[in-house]
Amino acid sequence: MSNLGLDAMLISQPESRRYLSGFTGQDTPPLDSAGYLLITASKALLLTDGRTVEQAEKEAAEYQVVRIDTRLPDTLAQILPGMGLSRIAFEGNHLTIRLYEEVKAVVEPNTLLVPTYDLVDTMRAVKEPGELEALRDAVALADAAFAHLLGIAKPGVTERELAWEIEAFLRTDGSEGVAFNPIVASGPNASMPHHVPGDRPIQAGEPIILDWGARVKGYCSDITRTVVIGEADEQFKRLYSVVLEAQTRAEQRIRAGMTGAKAYSLAQKVMAAAGLGEELAHSLGHGVGLAIHEKPYLRKTSEEVLEDGMVFSIEPGVYLPGWGGIRIEDLVTLRGGKPIVLTRSPKQLEAMEV
Amino acid sequence: MSNLGLDAMLISQPESRRYLSGFTGQDTPPLDSAGYLLITASKALLLTDGRTVEQAEKEAAEYQVVRIDTRLPDTLAQILPGMGLSRIAFEGNHLTIRLYEEVKAVVEPNTLLVPTYDLVDTMRAVKEPGELEALRDAVALADAAFAHLLGIAKPGVTERELAWEIEAFLRTDGSEGVAFNPIVASGPNASMPHHVPGDRPIQAGEPIILDWGARVKGYCSDITRTVVIGEADEQFKRLYSVVLEAQTRAEQRIRAGMTGAKAYSLAQKVMAAAGLGEELAHSLGHGVGLAIHEKPYLRKTSEEVLEDGMVFSIEPGVYLPGWGGIRIEDLVTLRGGKPIVLTRSPKQLEAMEV
Repeated sequence: MSNLGLDAMLISQPESRRYLSGFTGQDTPPLDSAGYLLITASKALLLTDGRTVEQAEKEAAEYQVVRIDTRLPDTLAQILPGMGLSRIAFEGNHLTIRLYEEVKAVVEPNTLLVPTYDLVDTMRAVKEPGELEALRDAVALADAAFAHLLGIAKPGVTERELAWEIEAFLRTDGSEGVAFNPIVASGPNASMPHHVPGDRPIQAGEPIILDWGARVKGYCSDITRTVVIGEADEQFKRLYSVVLEAQTRAEQRIRAGMTGAKAYSLAQKVMAAAGLGEELAHSLGHGVGLAIHEKPYLRKTSEEVLEDGMVFSIEPGVYLPGWGGIRIEDLVTLRGGKPIVLTRSPKQLEAMEV
Repeated sequence: MSNLGLDAMLISQPESRRYLSGFTGQDTPPLDSAGYLLITASKALLLTDGRTVEQAEKEAAEYQVVRIDTRLPDTLAQILPGMGLSRIAFEGNHLTIRLYEEVKAVVEPNTLLVPTYDLVDTMRAVKEPGELEALRDAVALADAAFAHLLGIAKPGVTERELAWEIEAFLRTDGSEGVAFNPIVASGPNASMPHHVPGDRPIQAGEPIILDWGARVKGYCSDITRTVVIGEADEQFKRLYSVVLEAQTRAEQRIRAGMTGAKAYSLAQKVMAAAGLGEELAHSLGHGVGLAIHEKPYLRKTSEEVLEDGMVFSIEPGVYLPGWGGIRIEDLVTLRGGKPIVLTRSPKQLEAMEV
């Protein structure tokens, strides 16, 4: 903070709040926050309301907990005077216009509010050993769920039922919750990368995209497999082998020091060479951690540089409206400059015919 | 919009987006949006990325779907010129400083960005018949879960297991998901209103706060009951009868035309008269709808006026660190100026000894 000429930092993003303080309070979207951090050179304050004061005191031992009686700005108005802060940073990616205006109204006239972007997010991108351990555990739970899934994916089971089976398995097998609502997209629905599972019964011979993740100590895993019940047709086989080649190529050749854009191009070139378009349908991947989507982003335009200790997905996909789609996703970390694939579930074509 | 002198409205809040368009795309917090609406006098645009374009086209028939290739500001830079918009409103409660600054950078120099507060939120507060039906269905599912719970709450079951049982019952009994992560807070944990269920086994004779909700067509229910396994002690009985009296008093006397603050005082006076403090530990209640917390807010300082068609919780609580707590919560709507209690689960003291 002192390098940036900042006297204080106001943290509003839930994942950054947990990362820095250990406080696991859950926000109630869209408008209700479980709390904020205010960090200065000499003080670490956690501001939260009466519902979570006791929890915050137990979990965030290094922070002094301050009770918000009405709303954050009123509490700031009480505590800021006399703290002598002239430059207070906030998270520009997260703070709303309303809170910004309200906080501005209560700081002293000569205090400057400075937007910062990705300060804590960048710290979060490189994982410490304890974080990596939680991530590995979350990956192992997701892998176990795939083995379980293979036994229950039968024609006639609906997407929603299958999504529920994934979630129930995770939750009763050690996951704190799901990292996100599982995606089960069957047949033509599989052309929608973020399809919400519905009442469509899955059928033999069609592509079924399954995308799920577990959560351990707050840390998320994320995996996608695309399966066919019975035998895959030629269209599926041809497309699957291209996506798998793009996915494994990126997974093998990715290195620390590369930009997200360079990583993206590793897979994109394979897809383009096979005639599947000059752009991927979505990014190649994203970091995972306390948030399911976080830095680094492996996008066409991403100038972020990959580093040892980062953990991210590699998940190219192809989507044909009317027909369906294919996506294959593993989690990968970098160590000694090179990739280590964390996900263990099989992904060769033969293993996808279930 | 024209009354407010606005040419366009940019909607970023997920619940407002769904309310206005029908698009159910799910955002991935904290930073990833499933899309935005841009509404003018003659156009209704839904801007979303490639992952959800097809879903948006199916669900939001009245909207023209525009694909976001990289990020929202780039797409706005392409489509705004020539639309002749000089005053574009946005949701000040939701838009981040970053998006605001980026959008400002791409609008034409003479275009004004105008923060609005609670415009769509206020529309959402008064429910239409179809919304009320979904809310009633979600309440019925939550009520059914309570009956189920009574059969499985036994000494030795952990908070986390009980929370999972609630969720599993809801999800397999017709709920799209939980309205929020169920709260199970036993014994001393019950003094934390937003306690996250842990590995503590519940025990006979102690207060156990259970707080859960179902979701139907996106609409949330919310209920709290405080039970004791076996026989309640005198402390519990005394406190329970006060909280129940405060809760039923507010439930019976609440009327359209009252402010949220006046509603709050109905319960607060009962608690104060019993020597339980001059303020409630948290608000008396909150609206529910597509969001679990929305307008109206029944707070000490709320000047919002209650109207027919609003649906909100009434949930006073008392919390004693070291001992535990008691909260009782129903959902209520107003019709013909008077309250209709939607929640059917029993709440008299005898029924709480399970």
